[in-house]
Amino acid sequence: MFEYTRPVHYYETDKMGMVHHSNYIRWMEEARTFYFNDAGLAYSVTESYGIMSPVTDLSATYRSPARYGENFTVRLKVIKYSGTRFRVAYTISNEDGAVLCEAETGHAFVDNSLKPISLKKAIPERHELMMRFMEKESSC
Amino acid sequence: MFEYTRPVHYYETDKMGMVHHSNYIRWMEEARTFYFNDAGLAYSVTESYGIMSPVTDLSATYRSPARYGENFTVRLKVIKYSGTRFRVAYTISNEDGAVLCEAETGHAFVDNSLKPISLKKAIPERHELMMRFMEKESSC
Amino acid sequence: MFEYTRPVHYYETDKMGMVHHSNYIRWMEEARTFYFNDAGLAYSVTESYGIMSPVTDLSATYRSPARYGENFTVRLKVIKYSGTRFRVAYTISNEDGAVLCEAETGHAFVDNSLKPISLKKAIPERHELMMRFMEKESSC
Amino acid sequence: MFEYTRPVHYYETDKMGMVHHSNYIRWMEEARTFYFNDAGLAYSVTESYGIMSPVTDLSATYRSPARYGENFTVRLKVIKYSGTRFRVAYTISNEDGAVLCEAETGHAFVDNSLKPISLKKAIPERHELMMRFMEKESSC
Repeated sequence: MFEYTRPVHYYETDKMGMVHHSNYIRWMEEARTFYFNDAGLAYSVTESYGIMSPVTDLSATYRSPARYGENFTVRLKVIKYSGTRFRVAYTISNEDGAVLCEAETGHAFVDNSLKPISLKKAIPERHELMMRFMEKESSC
Repeated sequence: MFEYTRPVHYYETDKMGMVHHSNYIRWMEEARTFYFNDAGLAYSVTESYGIMSPVTDLSATYRSPARYGENFTVRLKVIKYSGTRFRVAYTISNEDGAVLCEAETGHAFVDNSLKPISLKKAIPERHELMMRFMEKESSC
Repeated sequence: MFEYTRPVHYYETDKMGMVHHSNYIRWMEEARTFYFNDAGLAYSVTESYGIMSPVTDLSATYRSPARYGENFTVRLKVIKYSGTRFRVAYTISNEDGAVLCEAETGHAFVDNSLKPISLKKAIPERHELMMRFMEKESSC
Repeated sequence: MFEYTRPVHYYETDKMGMVHHSNYIRWMEEARTFYFNDAGLAYSVTESYGIMSPVTDLSATYRSPARYGENFTVRLKVIKYSGTRFRVAYTISNEDGAVLCEAETGHAFVDNSLKPISLKKAIPERHELMMRFMEKESSC
C-alpha cells in the first residue's frame, strides 16, 4: 500500500495542543498528489488537459490526536474507479502505529465549467493507465 | 434554524477558482461557535472548565462550489445529545439559495488528558442548558 | 478610519493557545476586501477585468497575542497609490484596545500573465475612483 | 546553508493559480523546525521546558510566484542571537533557482505566561548549543 510520511507542522495544531481536524483533510490531498505522481498519473498533468477532479464527498473518523514533534503516515488506495468518478480510502497513523484517522473521499472528473466528464472519453490513455493501476492495486 | 452568513475570503479559494473543500469544515466550526454562543453555551466558557469537545467524525457532500465575491450561509442544528456526545447537522448555501454542502459532525466531551467525560456529571448546569436548548431546537 | 471586526476562529489558534502569526496576514486580506468593497472598488470586480493585485511585500510587528473568545479589529488605510502600485497600513487591536499587530502590505497591478500594468491605463474609471478615494482618506 | 525542499500543496494555491502569500510564512516555520532539529535544538524539546519562541516581527519580499506541480526550497540561517532573542533570514527559490521570496523573522523566548525570558538563564545547556551553532553557522 502506498505510504506518505511527514512531520506535523506547528501551524497545524490548535489550542487543544493537537492537530486541528480540518488538516487531516489536507493531508489526504497531499498524499493523493504523491500517490498519483508515483503511478504516473500526476494531477498537475491532468489539469493541463483542462480536467479537474474535485472532492464530491468525504467522511472521516478521528481515533487519536496527532501532535507536533511526531511524524504521521497516510496509507491510501483507490478503491473504486468508473471512468467518470473515483474513490480513495485512507488510514492515517502515528509513529507508534496508532491509528489517528480513517477516511474516504469521492472525486468526479469535470471540465473547466465544472461539467462532469468521462476521463475514458476525454483522455483515453490516462483512463488506460488508471485501469492498469487499479488492477495492480487490487492484487496488492 | 440558526444561520451564520459571511463572505468567502480570497485565501479560502484554490487554483480551481473556488473554495477549497477543507475550508467548509472550518466554516462549520465557525458557525458552531456563533450557534453555541447564541444559546448561552459559549465553547470558550466550556474550555475554561477544562472540558473540550473535539470532532470525533464528520461527513460532507459537496454539491456546488462557493466563490470569492459571494456570501455563504451555514444553517445548523444539534440533532443528538446524550450527555457525553453530541451531533450537529449543517446545510451550507450561497446567496441564490443553491445548496453548496450538506454535512454532519460528531463531538465528544473530554478532559485535558482527552479522557471522555460526561458533561452531565462534570458541569450539571451546562448539561441542563443543553437539554433545554435541545427541546427548543426540536420544536423549531 | 475603516474598521473591520470579527471574532477569532478556533482553527486560527495554535498549541501556544493563541492565534498563529500567519493568520494576521490573512486578516489583513479580509479587511482589504471589505475596505475596497466599501469604497466601490471591489477586488472581485477588478479581477473580472483580468487584473490582479498580488502582495509584493509585507512587514508586521506582533505586540500582543489574539485569543479565541475575543474579537479583533483591523484599522486600515491606503497610504500610497501611484497608478501602478499601492500600499496599505494596518493596526490590529483587541476588544480592550490593546494593539496586537502593526503591519504594511505593498501591492502591484498585474495582468493574467503577471506582467505589471498601470491601472490608470487599463481601467481609467477605476483609477479615478482610487484617486478620489485617496483624497477622501488623506483628509480623515 | 541549511536547505528544506518540498512540493507545493494544492490547498496552498489560490484563485490567482499560484501559492497564497500567507503560506510562505508557514513554509518558513516548517523550515525552522527542520533546521533546529538538525542542529540538536528541536523546538518541541524547548517547549517541553515551558519555553516558547513566538514570532515578534517579520518582513517578506515576494519576487516570483510558486506553483502547484513544482518543488520549492527554503534556505535559512540564524543571523542574530542575544540569549533572549534571535533572528532568522530566508531565501525561498523554485526548482529553476529563481528566487520566489526573501524574508526575515524575529523571535523572543517567553515563558508560559508570555513573559520574556533569557534562554541563557532558563536552559544554559541549550544556550551553549545555540552559541556553538551560531559559531558554526557564521563560518559557513
